[in-house]
Amino acid sequence: MIEPKIKLFAGSSHPQLTAAISKLLKVPVSPLDIRRFASNEIYAKPGETVRNADVFVIQTGTQNVNEDLIELFIMLDSFKRSFAAKVHVVMPYFPYARQDRVAAPREPISAKLMADLVSKAGADHVITFTLHSDQEQGFFDFPVDNLTARMLFADYLKKKKLKDLTVVAPDVGSAKEAQRLAKILNAELAIINKTRPAANVSEVTHVVGNVTGRTCILYDDLVDTAGSVANAVAALRKQHANKDFYLAATHAVLSQNAHKKLRAAKFKEIIFTDTIPISKQKRLPNMKIISVAPLLAAVIHNVHEGKPLTPLVNS
Amino acid sequence: MIEPKIKLFAGSSHPQLTAAISKLLKVPVSPLDIRRFASNEIYAKPGETVRNADVFVIQTGTQNVNEDLIELFIMLDSFKRSFAAKVHVVMPYFPYARQDRVAAPREPISAKLMADLVSKAGADHVITFTLHSDQEQGFFDFPVDNLTARMLFADYLKKKKLKDLTVVAPDVGSAKEAQRLAKILNAELAIINKTRPAANVSEVTHVVGNVTGRTCILYDDLVDTAGSVANAVAALRKQHANKDFYLAATHAVLSQNAHKKLRAAKFKEIIFTDTIPISKQKRLPNMKIISVAPLLAAVIHNVHEGKPLTPLVNS
Amino acid sequence: MIEPKIKLFAGSSHPQLTAAISKLLKVPVSPLDIRRFASNEIYAKPGETVRNADVFVIQTGTQNVNEDLIELFIMLDSFKRSFAAKVHVVMPYFPYARQDRVAAPREPISAKLMADLVSKAGADHVITFTLHSDQEQGFFDFPVDNLTARMLFADYLKKKKLKDLTVVAPDVGSAKEAQRLAKILNAELAIINKTRPAANVSEVTHVVGNVTGRTCILYDDLVDTAGSVANAVAALRKQHANKDFYLAATHAVLSQNAHKKLRAAKFKEIIFTDTIPISKQKRLPNMKIISVAPLLAAVIHNVHEGKPLTPLVNS
Amino acid sequence: MIEPKIKLFAGSSHPQLTAAISKLLKVPVSPLDIRRFASNEIYAKPGETVRNADVFVIQTGTQNVNEDLIELFIMLDSFKRSFAAKVHVVMPYFPYARQDRVAAPREPISAKLMADLVSKAGADHVITFTLHSDQEQGFFDFPVDNLTARMLFADYLKKKKLKDLTVVAPDVGSAKEAQRLAKILNAELAIINKTRPAANVSEVTHVVGNVTGRTCILYDDLVDTAGSVANAVAALRKQHANKDFYLAATHAVLSQNAHKKLRAAKFKEIIFTDTIPISKQKRLPNMKIISVAPLLAAVIHNVHEGKPLTPLVNS
Amino acid sequence: MIEPKIKLFAGSSHPQLTAAISKLLKVPVSPLDIRRFASNEIYAKPGETVRNADVFVIQTGTQNVNEDLIELFIMLDSFKRSFAAKVHVVMPYFPYARQDRVAAPREPISAKLMADLVSKAGADHVITFTLHSDQEQGFFDFPVDNLTARMLFADYLKKKKLKDLTVVAPDVGSAKEAQRLAKILNAELAIINKTRPAANVSEVTHVVGNVTGRTCILYDDLVDTAGSVANAVAALRKQHANKDFYLAATHAVLSQNAHKKLRAAKFKEIIFTDTIPISKQKRLPNMKIISVAPLLAAVIHNVHEGKPLTPLVNS
Amino acid sequence: MIEPKIKLFAGSSHPQLTAAISKLLKVPVSPLDIRRFASNEIYAKPGETVRNADVFVIQTGTQNVNEDLIELFIMLDSFKRSFAAKVHVVMPYFPYARQDRVAAPREPISAKLMADLVSKAGADHVITFTLHSDQEQGFFDFPVDNLTARMLFADYLKKKKLKDLTVVAPDVGSAKEAQRLAKILNAELAIINKTRPAANVSEVTHVVGNVTGRTCILYDDLVDTAGSVANAVAALRKQHANKDFYLAATHAVLSQNAHKKLRAAKFKEIIFTDTIPISKQKRLPNMKIISVAPLLAAVIHNVHEGKPLTPLVNS
Repeated sequence: MIEPKIKLFAGSSHPQLTAAISKLLKVPVSPLDIRRFASNEIYAKPGETVRNADVFVIQTGTQNVNEDLIELFIMLDSFKRSFAAKVHVVMPYFPYARQDRVAAPREPISAKLMADLVSKAGADHVITFTLHSDQEQGFFDFPVDNLTARMLFADYLKKKKLKDLTVVAPDVGSAKEAQRLAKILNAELAIINKTRPAANVSEVTHVVGNVTGRTCILYDDLVDTAGSVANAVAALRKQHANKDFYLAATHAVLSQNAHKKLRAAKFKEIIFTDTIPISKQKRLPNMKIISVAPLLAAVIHNVHEGKPLTPLVNS
Repeated sequence: MIEPKIKLFAGSSHPQLTAAISKLLKVPVSPLDIRRFASNEIYAKPGETVRNADVFVIQTGTQNVNEDLIELFIMLDSFKRSFAAKVHVVMPYFPYARQDRVAAPREPISAKLMADLVSKAGADHVITFTLHSDQEQGFFDFPVDNLTARMLFADYLKKKKLKDLTVVAPDVGSAKEAQRLAKILNAELAIINKTRPAANVSEVTHVVGNVTGRTCILYDDLVDTAGSVANAVAALRKQHANKDFYLAATHAVLSQNAHKKLRAAKFKEIIFTDTIPISKQKRLPNMKIISVAPLLAAVIHNVHEGKPLTPLVNS
Repeated sequence: MIEPKIKLFAGSSHPQLTAAISKLLKVPVSPLDIRRFASNEIYAKPGETVRNADVFVIQTGTQNVNEDLIELFIMLDSFKRSFAAKVHVVMPYFPYARQDRVAAPREPISAKLMADLVSKAGADHVITFTLHSDQEQGFFDFPVDNLTARMLFADYLKKKKLKDLTVVAPDVGSAKEAQRLAKILNAELAIINKTRPAANVSEVTHVVGNVTGRTCILYDDLVDTAGSVANAVAALRKQHANKDFYLAATHAVLSQNAHKKLRAAKFKEIIFTDTIPISKQKRLPNMKIISVAPLLAAVIHNVHEGKPLTPLVNS
Repeated sequence: MIEPKIKLFAGSSHPQLTAAISKLLKVPVSPLDIRRFASNEIYAKPGETVRNADVFVIQTGTQNVNEDLIELFIMLDSFKRSFAAKVHVVMPYFPYARQDRVAAPREPISAKLMADLVSKAGADHVITFTLHSDQEQGFFDFPVDNLTARMLFADYLKKKKLKDLTVVAPDVGSAKEAQRLAKILNAELAIINKTRPAANVSEVTHVVGNVTGRTCILYDDLVDTAGSVANAVAALRKQHANKDFYLAATHAVLSQNAHKKLRAAKFKEIIFTDTIPISKQKRLPNMKIISVAPLLAAVIHNVHEGKPLTPLVNS
Repeated sequence: MIEPKIKLFAGSSHPQLTAAISKLLKVPVSPLDIRRFASNEIYAKPGETVRNADVFVIQTGTQNVNEDLIELFIMLDSFKRSFAAKVHVVMPYFPYARQDRVAAPREPISAKLMADLVSKAGADHVITFTLHSDQEQGFFDFPVDNLTARMLFADYLKKKKLKDLTVVAPDVGSAKEAQRLAKILNAELAIINKTRPAANVSEVTHVVGNVTGRTCILYDDLVDTAGSVANAVAALRKQHANKDFYLAATHAVLSQNAHKKLRAAKFKEIIFTDTIPISKQKRLPNMKIISVAPLLAAVIHNVHEGKPLTPLVNS
Repeated sequence: MIEPKIKLFAGSSHPQLTAAISKLLKVPVSPLDIRRFASNEIYAKPGETVRNADVFVIQTGTQNVNEDLIELFIMLDSFKRSFAAKVHVVMPYFPYARQDRVAAPREPISAKLMADLVSKAGADHVITFTLHSDQEQGFFDFPVDNLTARMLFADYLKKKKLKDLTVVAPDVGSAKEAQRLAKILNAELAIINKTRPAANVSEVTHVVGNVTGRTCILYDDLVDTAGSVANAVAALRKQHANKDFYLAATHAVLSQNAHKKLRAAKFKEIIFTDTIPISKQKRLPNMKIISVAPLLAAVIHNVHEGKPLTPLVNS
């Protein structure tokens, strides 16, 4: 048996990111015949041998999340049956990550389910970014590299030399991650908390922590409808925060009118990564998109070479 | 531990069939909160306890096939985690059943994959109709009741007292199933075969078997785009078959303009079942839809009671 | 096969809780021969048949945590091999629950590991209290009832009719759970945050949120060495909080000198549950211990009877 | 860890094929101590280390089919326990392949069962020829190379420059595979169909398709008792087919008096492969045996080298 | 779901034992269509529904051991796919039990392998007699009732009121089990030991322990070729043991000329059980066969009823 | 993917053996951060990358057996999640090996349980010495190298040129292993047997075999409390054995006052290996400790290189 060669494949969810990674890695994207039958059933067939290959397949979660998943499962089945040596799933945004606990009786834990299905379909390893909770890493019965864009955001923000900084978690569940960024930036921490003063009275948004005169960076793992960040900005304004607001989030889910709410919130700057493709129509003039392609390319390279990721992750 | 009670749940794919089964079984459909987040992620939560219940969940494959599957997986996860005693999946049309073999190197076997994922997500048993090939029953590592509508078609057709009958398989792969119907109806058998006389020459449709003057019943497991049945009718006409053509098929997939092609083919009658919902727009005046609800209700009843299915299946 | 009968067994970790549950359930504790060989290897043998029984085995995590676990695994092996119908593990405090994520490269996820080992050894179901993070429920591939003592604390505290209440999370990771209690009590929320102003400077404890003149309830899932609650009280005092401090926590791990630190912190009242036995020597005069036995007995009863837990959990 | 070396082992079912493959591959057959105890229990022990070896073990299904299987399972157990790197089962004729569906209620799916047992016993990969149905590939949860002898037959037959060729499927279930050969040979297709005109009347064999004056090649995956091919020839004669009949089949099962029936049927030529050893006593003067050894040797070589099989399979 | 009913099925290995158990249990043997195709492939189909049944299938290991096993696997597959509630394998003699360890490098552990295959094929439980070593119980990942005929032998021998009894183990590996019988009978213990005084010198049989003038009972789990018991008797005679020799063994494997050797050894009495059928031709005048049917019937009854086996096993 | 490099890690159970192996192998012991939290929960984190490494982790069973096991499980989880290529557990003394059978109804088979848990936690392979019974090798579903120190003892004893040697098994269960050593040494065999002449009468220790004037070597897999070897020596003395007694055993468990009993038994020499660390306090002047480090180092080397162990094991 010869040493497995690296091969790069990609689903249809994020061609730009795939192209960027391929270019950086100097590994071409292998042909993959993905089609959709008249019945909407998906067909996927590698266009060249994967026998004994070290396969990396790139597929993220988009607004077409369920199609993205089924397409991934089918690709994995073909890799597994075609005798790939190892199959690494590069899934920058792991869908259903928010459904990670039983918040009300009888709820599914869809994040765990998807981890199980990805494994059953044929994955040996997952590379992803910022799972909704750190604990989700334990949902996988095989190695997961749960990368973070925190250092990318910190490096970018440090260059701005902002003063009197406060990192604000837009809800209590995001407090832990906000604290981590605050530590790196030597910033203070504040948290948005929603309470209901009495039954049948509408919810009130509080700011826990002092933000008067502070430059606030709202920081979260993802922005979906942008409703909570819009409310957060309003609450911070009431507390006389500095009028320059920043928003930083790894995953730009941007459902429905999210981009309109973001425009209305008048951020000084909005910083996303490209773990999810952002359509032209949803891009705003004050939006900065930091690419995760260089980090992913380096990670893929080291995984293939059997080298540690620590130097990449901590830099 | 008390004896498990029957509970009936349904996904969003086929409410009419669910209602019909519920009425026949005299078991109400239990509430199930199925929602879709802004991000298109699906949420499903049983609205009442399933602890120690004998759960039957109805979900078929429609034109929304991938959403149907993910919705099913999520429902299964919630049943499993909520301590259901047994979970039976009633999936009248099992999606991806046609992708049941490696026809070209490196193809996935998506039918097997879906069987595996349904199992991994939490199913203990599947009840379905007419898998594309009989062998697919072996794709499941747990019991499968692969029902057939053959007797429903035969009973209906017998009443017409048609003479000089030939059952025609629209392609060679369907010959076995056509032969079975022909035996019940004491009919002859013919098969449509496509050949290519020489390279770079277009495919020719042959009729294998004699159909001159015969009343032909085209019979298949499903009708998708209706392209092959349209070609079959044309080929049969050339062979001077009786001008009254019948079409019988279990699964009315009816993708794209299938209904238009069916109209143009001028069948005397088209006979489908309701394993897949047929929208009003796709219904034709010469279309007869035989409901599988009575058979499914009886099967569900016997499965719950631990009684044999043989009396139901052979009648 | 007749209907399985309920049988109650217990490891050696918490005899008082076992006795209380047994009395409430009116189910005797079945004999279990647990011994330790000279070599410290553990031996466990049920003293009566478990064939076709619905077995509930009670074992919590104490300061002898590793012995507790191995003892549990061995008991499970004997139940499984002796043909028990179902084996439910009642583990009020699930050990290693805090090791639930990879905080530094190459860390184990011991909570997930223990969930896997409990399953492999023979458990079909786990009943526990307040896992360190809600997400851990997804570490189990079988049903878990993750009960909460939140309502027990809330009911007890409401009777005190305290005013100007603030629930304080002793660190950022506990903010979510503190918020939940605050909502029930109509209280405000504050969070203790630790920062390091500069490299090589010692950590500073901040209070995020306003606590001046407020009656503070420190609330956490567990108290281990009591170091962080002691620091929290000091920080709250600096902010001129009301001098009456309360501490509420589900799991009284109380390692090392925890009880001394708690005494020194001069709480008005410390409220624990008995998920872990608290030795006489560690009990303080201002310590209130709410028993989880009534809730566990009711849960066990409903699980055995196949009835929903929702009425018990939400009352 | 050094790179695994190729090692070739063989069960007792087909020494000639093993020798041929070994010679072509230039890899000696490793010693394997296979014995049978007085009690008929089988013993198998590799005679040299397999630690870290890329093991290929050759065993086909013969008239001693059950002994062949148990012998294989025991060999696999010894390879697995002795730390082989990979174990590839080369099983030119996969036994029980015909029991691939539930034709009557409560039938086993023995082909799926054998796939599962081969896997459980220790195989990582199976290389076989012409499974009874293409779908059986999905019975394996690991890679299977389901080779075909179709091109070997086609190449051999083409050289004969036969005219007015019709490929005849000896029953409806074989129609699909017959169609494939017909396409390659530019031949017509006919199918033998059995019907029963009325209850209590004996079965009648029909020819579906026109064979008058045609040179017929009966083509099937295997010949067992030769009963159906004998009937087929009689039916074709009645339809005034050309008196030169050919028979081509991959697997020469040849049970009982099959060779006598084949002699009586007076084929112009009978073409088999050597996936199953054919005893001298069963060989007929008009029998041509095409060896699969060159194809198998090439496949084994490419599998070991991690090279694609496509070039071999399509030539 | 109603309560599962008991159903009794049997393979073809031991019809007399099946009949005896059926009569004692007052449960008829359910029809099972077992056939052998011309190719020697086995077919097995339950003749009536097993849906929701508590199935007990009786199959022992005979001189046809490999066929017995494959027949069992196929029966299990059909029970599992046909939705039996539980499948108990009653295998009075478990084949390959002697291959329970790696005595030389690279040997298989066939006993473990067969336990795994029985499980994979569909068994939930095994009931057997006197596995070759007690440790083999641990080869099964599910409950095993490893019954013993020791008390049956003891009761029978006690009635003879023999004096100066010594139980003799025919080799060192059987010493433990001989010791157990000796304890019950208040007998002494002796062991046959084989040594080789020097290289290239033939093996010498020693008696370890004093047997002069003692009445010897050779006792083993099974008698295969009877070679070692014949040698043992010769060695005991040399030591001037009492001329009345007894032989007791659970499993009468009796391969090849075993019965002739037993006749030549001139035992006073040979006591076997009927875990394996003994053909008329192999029965000797001095052979007493104690039936295990009463014990098996009682065990099956209690297993079905969920009652403990201890009262049966210790009486 | 590059070739995996060897890495050596060790738990806290046996640092001397680890150091000796490391020195012989010329492979440094990789850093491993093992800590114990205040709550006694164990933490273990590899101090350097294990990505793509061929990991050997050394951990034996000591008087802290349960802690040793949990520590091992946690180490295995971290190796597995950190993407080690293979994880080999070097466990010279495998704990719980004596609980290898169900001696009384409902007993656990803890040896099998521990094998399962070691596997579930992440081991691919186990290297150990002298499992309590040979059959335990079958408890592992993956390769096990069950090494023996028999040749080490034999070589050492041969040099003494002792005459009139008898190897004595201290109980009947050890007879088989004693026989093996006796064969190598050309010694006779004797066995200690305990009987109870009548109910309520205390047990009597018999010597089976003649030991008068013989030099006896008591030989067992392990010495735990030394109770049975002390009794054995007394019984041998009564039979006028030579006054020079030897004791040889692989595993020096030496619980409680074992060393005092050993001193009192006045052996000429006691020979142990260092599979378990022997504290200074328990070492006696007549104790010889043969190190297994050279054999283990050679085995680890060959395993890593993919070379056979046979030359090492048979020398």
